[in-house]
Amino acid sequence: MLKTFEDVVLALAHCYPEVNGAFRLWNGRTVTIGNHPPCFTLHLHSEQAARRLLREGSLGFGEEYMAGTIDIEGDIQQLLRLGMDRRFRDTCIPVSTKARIFLEHLRSLNTIHQSRTNISSHYDHGNDFYQLWLDTSLAYSCAYFRTPQDSLEAAQQQKYELICRKLRLQPGETLLDIGCGWGGMMVYAARHYQAHVRGITLSEQQYEYTRERIRREGLGNQLEVRLQDYRDTEGQFDKFVSIGMFEHVGKKFIPTYMQKVHALLKPGGLGLLHTIGKDNGIGKNDRGDPWISRYIFPGGYIPLLDEILRAMGNRDLVALDMENLRLHYALTLGHWIHRFEQQVDRIQAMTDESFVRMWRIYFHYCQATFQWGQTRLYQILFSKGLQNDYPLTRNHMQVAGNITENP
Amino acid sequence: MLKTFEDVVLALAHCYPEVNGAFRLWNGRTVTIGNHPPCFTLHLHSEQAARRLLREGSLGFGEEYMAGTIDIEGDIQQLLRLGMDRRFRDTCIPVSTKARIFLEHLRSLNTIHQSRTNISSHYDHGNDFYQLWLDTSLAYSCAYFRTPQDSLEAAQQQKYELICRKLRLQPGETLLDIGCGWGGMMVYAARHYQAHVRGITLSEQQYEYTRERIRREGLGNQLEVRLQDYRDTEGQFDKFVSIGMFEHVGKKFIPTYMQKVHALLKPGGLGLLHTIGKDNGIGKNDRGDPWISRYIFPGGYIPLLDEILRAMGNRDLVALDMENLRLHYALTLGHWIHRFEQQVDRIQAMTDESFVRMWRIYFHYCQATFQWGQTRLYQILFSKGLQNDYPLTRNHMQVAGNITENP
Repeated sequence: MLKTFEDVVLALAHCYPEVNGAFRLWNGRTVTIGNHPPCFTLHLHSEQAARRLLREGSLGFGEEYMAGTIDIEGDIQQLLRLGMDRRFRDTCIPVSTKARIFLEHLRSLNTIHQSRTNISSHYDHGNDFYQLWLDTSLAYSCAYFRTPQDSLEAAQQQKYELICRKLRLQPGETLLDIGCGWGGMMVYAARHYQAHVRGITLSEQQYEYTRERIRREGLGNQLEVRLQDYRDTEGQFDKFVSIGMFEHVGKKFIPTYMQKVHALLKPGGLGLLHTIGKDNGIGKNDRGDPWISRYIFPGGYIPLLDEILRAMGNRDLVALDMENLRLHYALTLGHWIHRFEQQVDRIQAMTDESFVRMWRIYFHYCQATFQWGQTRLYQILFSKGLQNDYPLTRNHMQVAGNITENP
Repeated sequence: MLKTFEDVVLALAHCYPEVNGAFRLWNGRTVTIGNHPPCFTLHLHSEQAARRLLREGSLGFGEEYMAGTIDIEGDIQQLLRLGMDRRFRDTCIPVSTKARIFLEHLRSLNTIHQSRTNISSHYDHGNDFYQLWLDTSLAYSCAYFRTPQDSLEAAQQQKYELICRKLRLQPGETLLDIGCGWGGMMVYAARHYQAHVRGITLSEQQYEYTRERIRREGLGNQLEVRLQDYRDTEGQFDKFVSIGMFEHVGKKFIPTYMQKVHALLKPGGLGLLHTIGKDNGIGKNDRGDPWISRYIFPGGYIPLLDEILRAMGNRDLVALDMENLRLHYALTLGHWIHRFEQQVDRIQAMTDESFVRMWRIYFHYCQATFQWGQTRLYQILFSKGLQNDYPLTRNHMQVAGNITENP
């Protein structure tokens, strides 16, 4: 059956009667859906862009948007909600594109050497770039909102607090933070819980920033940061945390990661894994979104909840608690998008228009997948072997209000 | 290498220096372990019993204990803690016994016909038997303790309350309870949350009891109980719950079960699965404990956490929250053991000594596996498809004190 762009749009309109939008085509025609004024307009400046969108899904959409042959006005989320529909995801990517994706997948496999390159490509755009739109603690991961009205600053501090509470972190305990970013969790655990924290990262700029931050805040007795691969770190810790790093491990290395976590924890020690994941068996064997892999996270892999838990179980890491914070990530991304757009002129001056368009559509795409699509944010609490002293209830996990930001 | 009983005991003593116990052998010898007075004594009245214990693990132990060739004085839990050790679990069951186990496994497969027989064999011993040692609501599943000092009555009511809170049960909503037992959850949801509940069970005695209970309590407008297999029930419900029934589904039927749950829930509806499970990859392909399968739960199967979540994901059931209540089940079993022993003379008069010995060792074995071994109790909250209105935090799940028992 011939699948034209208009056919697909009209088929989707049937399934999403509450979505109102307009599609301005290259030939001057406009297709509208919904019974109310459109809340977005998608401009397709060429037939080629429409064809790539239909054939290559997010890869075509992302590349055409970056190139400026697609523009979007109004509420991008409502547009992307349609994009989450299976009809757009079940695209027929040409064999040549598939071959390119597969080669890039092989090239980006997270060997110890390649991991550093993969990480650097995303996190070493310059700390001043991230400082323009992240909260002051520079948490580049899902925050924890007590209410949707919470500020981003408060919600990131609340995330740190929630994790410390789940981990039952005690003064003087040692904590390992794999993928420590710019040190936000480390500083919180040191200041509020008097913990001794080792953080490791593969980003040179994160490493330099965190080293300087530890010095500036006078926390050298409690905090240590290393430019190191998780496979190379040694020692035994009371507690373990990893926030938004597991997505970089890759399917092939999940068992290696769990084996290492097991080795690094003391018997009975508690760990918290905070990671994006999927619960959906559909597309189980795929290598994730090809546009994201190509432009945003080379070597990245969104793990399935069951494969995380199986790998834990195989290494005697006992799952105690799982919380799905999916909608918190949609809120977090909403803040980042708002702050990014407020600074967009400065960011464009630092980089270029294609970079700005790439980041904008990346943010929006992620927000849409958390809100309407397949991605989740899991916090999984576990112990190394059995831990018979953990509290019976979760009352201690409740985060109170008025957690003040750490300047 | 020759593996004698004394060798095994002495090897274990090295690994569990805190355990103090005595083993009185058939030949008059006594082996003691630990540096303090023994807290238990295991009497082995024949060499055959010792040999079966070594070769057949729990199957040999259970059968010899039932036959009276093994006796235990003192703290059975400390003895069974040793029994959880891998050296006892890695037993060399003779081929003839293996063949018998496999045939029994085939015979007990949970076809619609066989399920009723399997359920009846455990739950139709007579309601008066269960009333002797369960709480007044007759909850034959893990309770929820706010403190270890909570009474069993309070802890079972708290379990119902916790589930209603996780499910955000609202007045007038419809709830399906698969494996409703003697109706405790149904009555709680009707009385405290004004819900309309359908409960289904395969036990005739549970069905008769629950029907009479609904009539007696005047809840006929809100509650309906059916003697029905889950595969045969129809309709669409706002909420779903299943407490301690999933263990009877069997590995082969897990996808069938999830498909049915998906069909029975309204889009966006919430479900709670409360089930024993395992997180451990070791022994992943085994059919569970052969003694338990033979004597306690024919057709029973302890699912793995990852296989539960994979089956959910494959059916678009989105995991929102998981809580491991393992130690709550150890506490629950402690209450049941205490109450059982208080009534042991009456129970023995109703049945026989072999039955009493079988139930005693079943209870103790289960308590030990929750406390020291491989079994867990998972509460998994999920939604059918995405549910974007669920609260951001878990504050609403917190169970307050002073939940009064429903007489």
